[in-house]
Amino acid sequence: MAEGLPALGWAARDASGHLSPYSFSRSVPKDDDVTIKVLFCGICHTDLHIIKNDWGNALYPIVPGHEIVGVVTSVGSGVSSFKAGDTVGVGYFLHSCRTCYSCSKGYENFCPTLTLTSNGVDGGGATTQGGFSDVLVVNKDYVIRVPDGLPLAGAAPLLCAGVTVYSPMVEYGINVPGKHLGVVGLGGLGHVAVKFGKAFGMTVTVISSSDRKRDEALGRLGADAFLVSSDPEQMKAAAGTMDGIIDTVSAGHAIVPLLDLLKPMGQMVVVGAPSKPLELPAFAIIGGGKRLAGSGTGSVAHCQAMLDFAGKHGITADVEVVKMDYVNTAIERLEKNDVRYRFVIDVAGSHLQGGAA
Amino acid sequence: MAEGLPALGWAARDASGHLSPYSFSRSVPKDDDVTIKVLFCGICHTDLHIIKNDWGNALYPIVPGHEIVGVVTSVGSGVSSFKAGDTVGVGYFLHSCRTCYSCSKGYENFCPTLTLTSNGVDGGGATTQGGFSDVLVVNKDYVIRVPDGLPLAGAAPLLCAGVTVYSPMVEYGINVPGKHLGVVGLGGLGHVAVKFGKAFGMTVTVISSSDRKRDEALGRLGADAFLVSSDPEQMKAAAGTMDGIIDTVSAGHAIVPLLDLLKPMGQMVVVGAPSKPLELPAFAIIGGGKRLAGSGTGSVAHCQAMLDFAGKHGITADVEVVKMDYVNTAIERLEKNDVRYRFVIDVAGSHLQGGAA
Repeated sequence: MAEGLPALGWAARDASGHLSPYSFSRSVPKDDDVTIKVLFCGICHTDLHIIKNDWGNALYPIVPGHEIVGVVTSVGSGVSSFKAGDTVGVGYFLHSCRTCYSCSKGYENFCPTLTLTSNGVDGGGATTQGGFSDVLVVNKDYVIRVPDGLPLAGAAPLLCAGVTVYSPMVEYGINVPGKHLGVVGLGGLGHVAVKFGKAFGMTVTVISSSDRKRDEALGRLGADAFLVSSDPEQMKAAAGTMDGIIDTVSAGHAIVPLLDLLKPMGQMVVVGAPSKPLELPAFAIIGGGKRLAGSGTGSVAHCQAMLDFAGKHGITADVEVVKMDYVNTAIERLEKNDVRYRFVIDVAGSHLQGGAA
Repeated sequence: MAEGLPALGWAARDASGHLSPYSFSRSVPKDDDVTIKVLFCGICHTDLHIIKNDWGNALYPIVPGHEIVGVVTSVGSGVSSFKAGDTVGVGYFLHSCRTCYSCSKGYENFCPTLTLTSNGVDGGGATTQGGFSDVLVVNKDYVIRVPDGLPLAGAAPLLCAGVTVYSPMVEYGINVPGKHLGVVGLGGLGHVAVKFGKAFGMTVTVISSSDRKRDEALGRLGADAFLVSSDPEQMKAAAGTMDGIIDTVSAGHAIVPLLDLLKPMGQMVVVGAPSKPLELPAFAIIGGGKRLAGSGTGSVAHCQAMLDFAGKHGITADVEVVKMDYVNTAIERLEKNDVRYRFVIDVAGSHLQGGAA
């Protein structure tokens, strides 16, 4: 057996979630693999849950990170779609079975044996390690091209947060000029949904639990309206006006007041996952023929289309770029939602052995 | 003011729900109205809730009935689409605003100011009285043509139960040959859904809380499979196999085991309305991108398409035909689900003044 490709990242060793330098091996690149030098990697809430074993599925040591932008350093002999020097992205998964119902329909993101980019298990039974590391090896069919000119730090979160909101908008036709989009929650996902909605030419209303983010929603992000979900008067005045709602909130919340905002036959999509079940009275969807769906990340095709759209419209996430030696502090701040709106690690600019770069 | 059209029906006077003969007036037919002699009228669970004021909206006296088949006796000067002698149907509503979002999209059934056929309020502020009566006056645009050859007693329940399941099947593409349909609950709605599913060329599985209806589901109704929802082994074996599910159950029940039966991106439609909220964990729909919608009755266009389809395939509801003097007993039996699968009153064959016909 050939030796693996040496890699250096930061990993969590236990449920404390504390990250520290970690040397490991990547699998030897195969003919259809692309080898990528990681430039930037976003910190997603999922990383936080995984490294703290909140979901009971942690495979320590864990190198987190699945919002990855990098540069191709080499490609296998079977790869013609990418070449060294290309700027590329990798998202929430880096392989799928290619044969199941979801894969055959082009929705790899719903493949039941999806290989996650971090804390997953690859076809050979090895644990996958994510983008908080210097190098990645990924099959060419799961690599996304980053359009020229898109600022790379701000592009990284699009690979997960971006496609998670873009994919259902496109899938359910909540991307039509003049239609009215509601975005519930203004965080890593929500603020990108607002940008996509405006770029699609839609009227966009942000729905938030407090008034705190009103100015930035209406100002910098360009939303058309802002609703405080705890104010029944405001909510009532907006009832029946929205064509679609993207609900990004992962804290427990009532969905009936949100469903009431929809027009008849309107579509709500849940992309945040509260730990307690949502309470859904049947009458809230029967009377107006309303529609509710779940969605998670997006297919490779949607991810590419999303990045192309972002490139065309100059859309990136609003990010706070940090070095790797700040990652534990960043994660603490993320737990308190103290970030506007996404931390991104400047991986290539960090001294991965530890200490300041 | 002209005198109204004299009508005779059976009405409930109070929350006992007891029905007895009732003389009243229909509005004088206008130029665009169709006057209909009622032949048959189905008894729907909604009638039961309304006459007992379960929903707190009873407008006594109430003549129930919204699954109506009759014969046209006269038409106004502005009506060219119907003539005396035509066999027609009237369903859950007999007018809508024609201008709202739903009406403009051709989904009158979701009009917020829908005029219900019974216990509704018409444009003039009068209470509407339903099909447990000898005569109806209905605007031509809300009258459905009953295709030749369809047995009329069995056709009556199609006007509500039939379109309630047919409409979402068509709307959500759960009507495609070879696809797999799950029908939850084998009652007035469910048994018609099985028949439609088979006529569409689908594989149909009935999901029921007990084994009791297995033989009739697989035998007379022609379902391909039968699942007992309380048996985790059976449910697990069928996980991920269904393209669509129509949930007709109005008793409280768990929906996660039903959602688990769906393929990724599968569609479940709730047409039964349990009084308690459904419990919907977000993970049950996010992982597979699953879809849930509510639906109630159907548009005029869907209702006509449904009856045309039923006529082509010889589909009727399985009914127990009774005379009006049996109606109170029928309602008692309906409360205990003691009917296979719908009571239909032979209105024209009943002595409406009371006593045996």
